[in-house]
Amino acid sequence: MPSVEESLALIKRGAAEILVEEELVAKLKSGRPLRIKAGFDPTAPDLHLGHTVLINKLRQFQDLGHEVLFLIGDFTGMIGDPTGKNATRPPLTREDVLHNAETYKEQVFKILDRDKTTVMFNSDWMNRMSSADMIELAAQHSVARMLERDDFNKRFRSEQPIAIHEFLYPLVQGYDSVAMKADVELGGTDQKFNLLVGRDLQRHWGQEPQVVLMMPLLEGLDGVNKMSKSLGNYVGITESPGVMFNKLVSMPDDLMWRYFELLSLRPMAEVGQFRADVQQGANPRDIKIVLARELVARFHGEEAAENAHKGAGNIISEGEVPEGTPEVALELEGQEAVPIAAVINRAGLTTNAAQARDMLKNGRVKVDWEPVEAQHKLAAGRYLIQAGKKKIAWVTLTT
Amino acid sequence: MPSVEESLALIKRGAAEILVEEELVAKLKSGRPLRIKAGFDPTAPDLHLGHTVLINKLRQFQDLGHEVLFLIGDFTGMIGDPTGKNATRPPLTREDVLHNAETYKEQVFKILDRDKTTVMFNSDWMNRMSSADMIELAAQHSVARMLERDDFNKRFRSEQPIAIHEFLYPLVQGYDSVAMKADVELGGTDQKFNLLVGRDLQRHWGQEPQVVLMMPLLEGLDGVNKMSKSLGNYVGITESPGVMFNKLVSMPDDLMWRYFELLSLRPMAEVGQFRADVQQGANPRDIKIVLARELVARFHGEEAAENAHKGAGNIISEGEVPEGTPEVALELEGQEAVPIAAVINRAGLTTNAAQARDMLKNGRVKVDWEPVEAQHKLAAGRYLIQAGKKKIAWVTLTT
Repeated sequence: MPSVEESLALIKRGAAEILVEEELVAKLKSGRPLRIKAGFDPTAPDLHLGHTVLINKLRQFQDLGHEVLFLIGDFTGMIGDPTGKNATRPPLTREDVLHNAETYKEQVFKILDRDKTTVMFNSDWMNRMSSADMIELAAQHSVARMLERDDFNKRFRSEQPIAIHEFLYPLVQGYDSVAMKADVELGGTDQKFNLLVGRDLQRHWGQEPQVVLMMPLLEGLDGVNKMSKSLGNYVGITESPGVMFNKLVSMPDDLMWRYFELLSLRPMAEVGQFRADVQQGANPRDIKIVLARELVARFHGEEAAENAHKGAGNIISEGEVPEGTPEVALELEGQEAVPIAAVINRAGLTTNAAQARDMLKNGRVKVDWEPVEAQHKLAAGRYLIQAGKKKIAWVTLTT
Repeated sequence: MPSVEESLALIKRGAAEILVEEELVAKLKSGRPLRIKAGFDPTAPDLHLGHTVLINKLRQFQDLGHEVLFLIGDFTGMIGDPTGKNATRPPLTREDVLHNAETYKEQVFKILDRDKTTVMFNSDWMNRMSSADMIELAAQHSVARMLERDDFNKRFRSEQPIAIHEFLYPLVQGYDSVAMKADVELGGTDQKFNLLVGRDLQRHWGQEPQVVLMMPLLEGLDGVNKMSKSLGNYVGITESPGVMFNKLVSMPDDLMWRYFELLSLRPMAEVGQFRADVQQGANPRDIKIVLARELVARFHGEEAAENAHKGAGNIISEGEVPEGTPEVALELEGQEAVPIAAVINRAGLTTNAAQARDMLKNGRVKVDWEPVEAQHKLAAGRYLIQAGKKKIAWVTLTT
């Protein structure tokens, strides 16, 4: 087992805030394996690298000998929308939950050690809780304090309704820590309020309060906004090796150090050496390739990473499909046909809408070797699509 | 069965507010017996006439052919104080609740018709409710609306804490109406907010909303403040016939019309005639005696009322104990001895502290025929106590 100092250094890597560090040190000094909690939505998971920041940290705890409690918060998901206002959010069934849990496992066990992970469902204890227990739980927090939470505060001030049950959900999340006897809970910085509720409730139920470890939100490929699917600046962990590789090596140079810190499992000493190399004239692209290969290999294996690397970055000759050209599957999502700009963006051939627009204006986008214009649309089918001199992919569009 | 117009006239007698009268008319027109709900605390009952205003109205509904649902709100009482801050409010046990229910019955069946009364306990449905059901219930109301309730609003503005479970209690009370399928709920004017919650929840659960009938708070014997034990201006329904009679015939003349309207079961036409008599010179005291006899008879029977009447109001001759002198039992409540002023007040020989003080100052209070002064105290024992020329009682003080 590593020393407390070594442990602490790895745990603090990339962390935004730890409450309370002295308590963490005390827990580490106890020498027993700690119970590390992280909660996840019970809805269908479709993780991108932004989500894996937290999962990476869980992995580091496992490497330090601790036990990960992977909590699926299915209890509230199975309630659905009790106000009845949101017809598009039907309650999840037990089958939905189990199916989604399987998908989660498939995705997160590419990072986590299966043997040191316990998957839990909070419906296990919440379904057994009576209405009287719920009232006792609700008694542990005041209305005024709940209204201090940023989002509640904004809605309250702007007179947007807050239904009373919304005050119960942070308490349920906090009570999960009691039921799980969590030593540490991980979450994003945006979860600070809820994470602290867990500490209060553990104290009330006579437990030592959990240490709260908050990870920052990962910037997307633009290096500016947080990674999000709707902003298009993301790398999905089920994306094909080629798309993933292309996206990663196209990011701004400075951004890679952030990704190394938060996503790579390489020691920080090694990352420091890379940084020194670049300062002394090494090509940043070569270092980004190291990062891209590590991440592609994590989700697709070593060989796929190597192939993605081989197929990327060569200048493409007319009529010659390069070795390792990535295969990308995209869905039409209910449309007859989608604009070419959306296709190349989603295929990772361009990194954002502006770049796609420029390439199309300059006639640098080709479908099956033919230049196309911005108004061009693609229906279902398989296409060889090229954007600029170096990016190419087989794209299959399905309904 | 009486006509809708007759029913409505009796129901509206003394009522402060009905929401919504048109709905009440429609329910009465249906011709079916209505389900009339009234909720009571599960703590030990010690009713005074103020409490019976509501019970009288229930009795009137019974006289009109409707069914009374006498709800004992034991669910929350059995939870106790979940914040743990109030050590003096331990949770009630099932035995406590059943014992208190028996005491209630003993007291209220002096007014209500036992055969048309169903006693219910909300623990019957609330204990079966799951935490998920409680969340659904909490979803039916917004935080902002709950903060509109007067007492919550005041506390929120003055930054006194409101625990979140306090928001759940009005919802529980409202849900009782759903579980009971109430057609009408009775309550004091101070209960308006909670009574209306019941209407909302019944609508949500697909029921016709209950009509809400609010009764005013009864003024105490001083004719100014609401009747309350702590203000000393009350008539307890377990007080002895003599005390009750003396207190009632000593009230200010004008106040009797209010008591007739809210407490008497005599038709308002008859009360109107009394009023006309007084305007034409009849002695108000004679009319108060009619009221006092009706009320004493209700709680102690016709004979006790007659004796109380006989024993009251005659000028007492030294050494001669008048026929029908009331027997009053008082407790020392942990003290060695109590001041004479408190004794005569509690025995109904004086109507307030000021009157007791005056009588003592003027040497008009006698214990076993001996005048006593204000500093005189009585220990356990049996005493004949006289206050002024007309008031006398046997008072037994016990530990």
